[in-house]
Amino acid sequence: MVYLTRIERFNAAHKLFVPAWSEEKNKEVFGKCANKNWHGHNYKLHVTVKGKPDPVTGFVIDVKVLSQLIKDVIIEKVDHSNLNLDVDFIPKGILPTTENLIIAFWKELSPKLNNCELHSIKLYETENIYAEYFGE
Amino acid sequence: MVYLTRIERFNAAHKLFVPAWSEEKNKEVFGKCANKNWHGHNYKLHVTVKGKPDPVTGFVIDVKVLSQLIKDVIIEKVDHSNLNLDVDFIPKGILPTTENLIIAFWKELSPKLNNCELHSIKLYETENIYAEYFGE
Amino acid sequence: MVYLTRIERFNAAHKLFVPAWSEEKNKEVFGKCANKNWHGHNYKLHVTVKGKPDPVTGFVIDVKVLSQLIKDVIIEKVDHSNLNLDVDFIPKGILPTTENLIIAFWKELSPKLNNCELHSIKLYETENIYAEYFGE
Amino acid sequence: MVYLTRIERFNAAHKLFVPAWSEEKNKEVFGKCANKNWHGHNYKLHVTVKGKPDPVTGFVIDVKVLSQLIKDVIIEKVDHSNLNLDVDFIPKGILPTTENLIIAFWKELSPKLNNCELHSIKLYETENIYAEYFGE
Amino acid sequence: MVYLTRIERFNAAHKLFVPAWSEEKNKEVFGKCANKNWHGHNYKLHVTVKGKPDPVTGFVIDVKVLSQLIKDVIIEKVDHSNLNLDVDFIPKGILPTTENLIIAFWKELSPKLNNCELHSIKLYETENIYAEYFGE
Amino acid sequence: MVYLTRIERFNAAHKLFVPAWSEEKNKEVFGKCANKNWHGHNYKLHVTVKGKPDPVTGFVIDVKVLSQLIKDVIIEKVDHSNLNLDVDFIPKGILPTTENLIIAFWKELSPKLNNCELHSIKLYETENIYAEYFGE
Repeated sequence: MVYLTRIERFNAAHKLFVPAWSEEKNKEVFGKCANKNWHGHNYKLHVTVKGKPDPVTGFVIDVKVLSQLIKDVIIEKVDHSNLNLDVDFIPKGILPTTENLIIAFWKELSPKLNNCELHSIKLYETENIYAEYFGE
Repeated sequence: MVYLTRIERFNAAHKLFVPAWSEEKNKEVFGKCANKNWHGHNYKLHVTVKGKPDPVTGFVIDVKVLSQLIKDVIIEKVDHSNLNLDVDFIPKGILPTTENLIIAFWKELSPKLNNCELHSIKLYETENIYAEYFGE
Repeated sequence: MVYLTRIERFNAAHKLFVPAWSEEKNKEVFGKCANKNWHGHNYKLHVTVKGKPDPVTGFVIDVKVLSQLIKDVIIEKVDHSNLNLDVDFIPKGILPTTENLIIAFWKELSPKLNNCELHSIKLYETENIYAEYFGE
Repeated sequence: MVYLTRIERFNAAHKLFVPAWSEEKNKEVFGKCANKNWHGHNYKLHVTVKGKPDPVTGFVIDVKVLSQLIKDVIIEKVDHSNLNLDVDFIPKGILPTTENLIIAFWKELSPKLNNCELHSIKLYETENIYAEYFGE
Repeated sequence: MVYLTRIERFNAAHKLFVPAWSEEKNKEVFGKCANKNWHGHNYKLHVTVKGKPDPVTGFVIDVKVLSQLIKDVIIEKVDHSNLNLDVDFIPKGILPTTENLIIAFWKELSPKLNNCELHSIKLYETENIYAEYFGE
Repeated sequence: MVYLTRIERFNAAHKLFVPAWSEEKNKEVFGKCANKNWHGHNYKLHVTVKGKPDPVTGFVIDVKVLSQLIKDVIIEKVDHSNLNLDVDFIPKGILPTTENLIIAFWKELSPKLNNCELHSIKLYETENIYAEYFGE
């Protein structure tokens, strides 16, 4: 079993804000991340699949195919977007934290992989913060 | 003459959108950067000062003092902000491109430096795009 | 289960030197790392916790809280320190290798986490050397 | 159990080309990677071993010893090489994809480690593509 | 005057080998870089232009236009190529050292820029080696 | 004229402490950098030379020769050293700040270069602090 990872990037706006709470409670819990006019990040996304390398091509998956799939399924929708408002596969009422984003990305990407299996989704929000999800 | 650089970071939302233009013309010129719901970046800011090292301390400037000044004058106002809406020192009608941001930062920071001179402001918008300004 | 990581940094001096050995034996085993006048590193520390994201906030843990905890418990004591002499929670007689540091950090940090569990501590000593510990 | 990683680098040429196929089929499957005149990469290799730190030295393994072993067994043979033509331990007929390289590296390195065990081999082909192997 | 930089990447094979010299002399001067079967690198290219930001768009140049121009004029020809054999704009008899590559890139790119001026071409051959050219 | 840069690294201890001052004044001016038991850094050194590429080899200078010279003249003496105590070419009474180190490195390296000229010495003390010197 070999684990193959492709990294893609996107830039997006978001805010952490629970509409059911007062502005004060949002500021208290989320600090500057609750700024009503949004802020944003350069996100860096690691997608890892696992499988046995094909005996002829030596590929677990053709990494160009994996890259295109990630772009079609995820990047196309999140790049230069507002993660609270613009992305159809992020359920309304779900805050776009790094944790929730990778669970949503897993649900989109996992069923579309053939011949190899999704192993993990890792997402850097900044150089110093990242989250990882293994599907359960 | 020694050149000393301090790097600081901030995360912000923006869009590139000329209100006097139609939505179509904005899309045509700015592409996805014109998304009306904003997008955002992790910005990385290099501030370079120049001077002669003090014969006793060996400092052009105490880098902790420089860091605090950059935070007070710039980062405090732009971090977790919307660069089109929230920043008092970015003139209305000026689009927050990397180029325009560094000119605005220079105007804020340059007069507040004592004993050493501002040499350059460099700003990374993404890993692959940066702009630099030397004050003229 | 989602794994969330926060990275913090510190700068410290150390040496690898067993007092019970001769200077020759120390040089033979540890090479330049045994220099009696110390050397030092910019350390980069990854702390990974695991848990289920809160259904309202979307947080495994508020990353600002995690960052402050790491600073209070570890960084405050090791930053700009001498790892052989200055750190109360590193037992005397234990050399401050990357391996031993992460075990000591785990013991300090693990009992202080609420609502989520410590998963791993990873420490870069240089760009090319790191060690990781999962608590057992 | 502590996991210790050493990173080494090498620069090499390769192409992805199945001799039994036509040039057209090679282009179709491998795209520009099939260029008959080769292309190349700066590879970055992570070797992770696991073990219990020695109670006196604090080492799972002396990282200088690990580094020298990786250089002797792998880097010496692959650095500034053509991975399709020059490396005795890559079987003829096996394409030098990232996946196949790490399996070949594992077979070379694993039997030569004493007192600690090989845990994983990870190889970056570019900043955005890496593969990892755990020996089975 | 603002300086704007766009970074692009390419992967290529090359060797440093003077055909008029014996194999021994080539090995003596170029070491492992003279390997007759080639080696290769992940190159990282910084292209810096200078100009006055447009008062409406805030652009020295639209960075997407600059990126496309670099791809059309340079990357398309050098990516996944053999720099000694495949690139029409590198004169025969000119070794593809980092120094010679940036001079050749300058000649291709400089005449194709409108409304702003090429300021510098910087090329990383490895993480630890780069060369820069300012056109004279 | 082409500018060629080689990066080398070293790890060292130091403190910022003026012996003529009280411990209080040292703490006041230098903060944690004055810790009497030292601290340390992974330093990253950029050495840039300039010259005309040789028409046959394409080299401003053979980068392996430049690397060996930097190692012989600087790295050998500063790596795994105490910069206040161990380095013969840093004058006593001169604090080993980043600013003073690059001036001292310039004096050592500049006279030993043949056929090309030293252009600049740049030194990173941390990821976020660097200083650069052009010889005057």
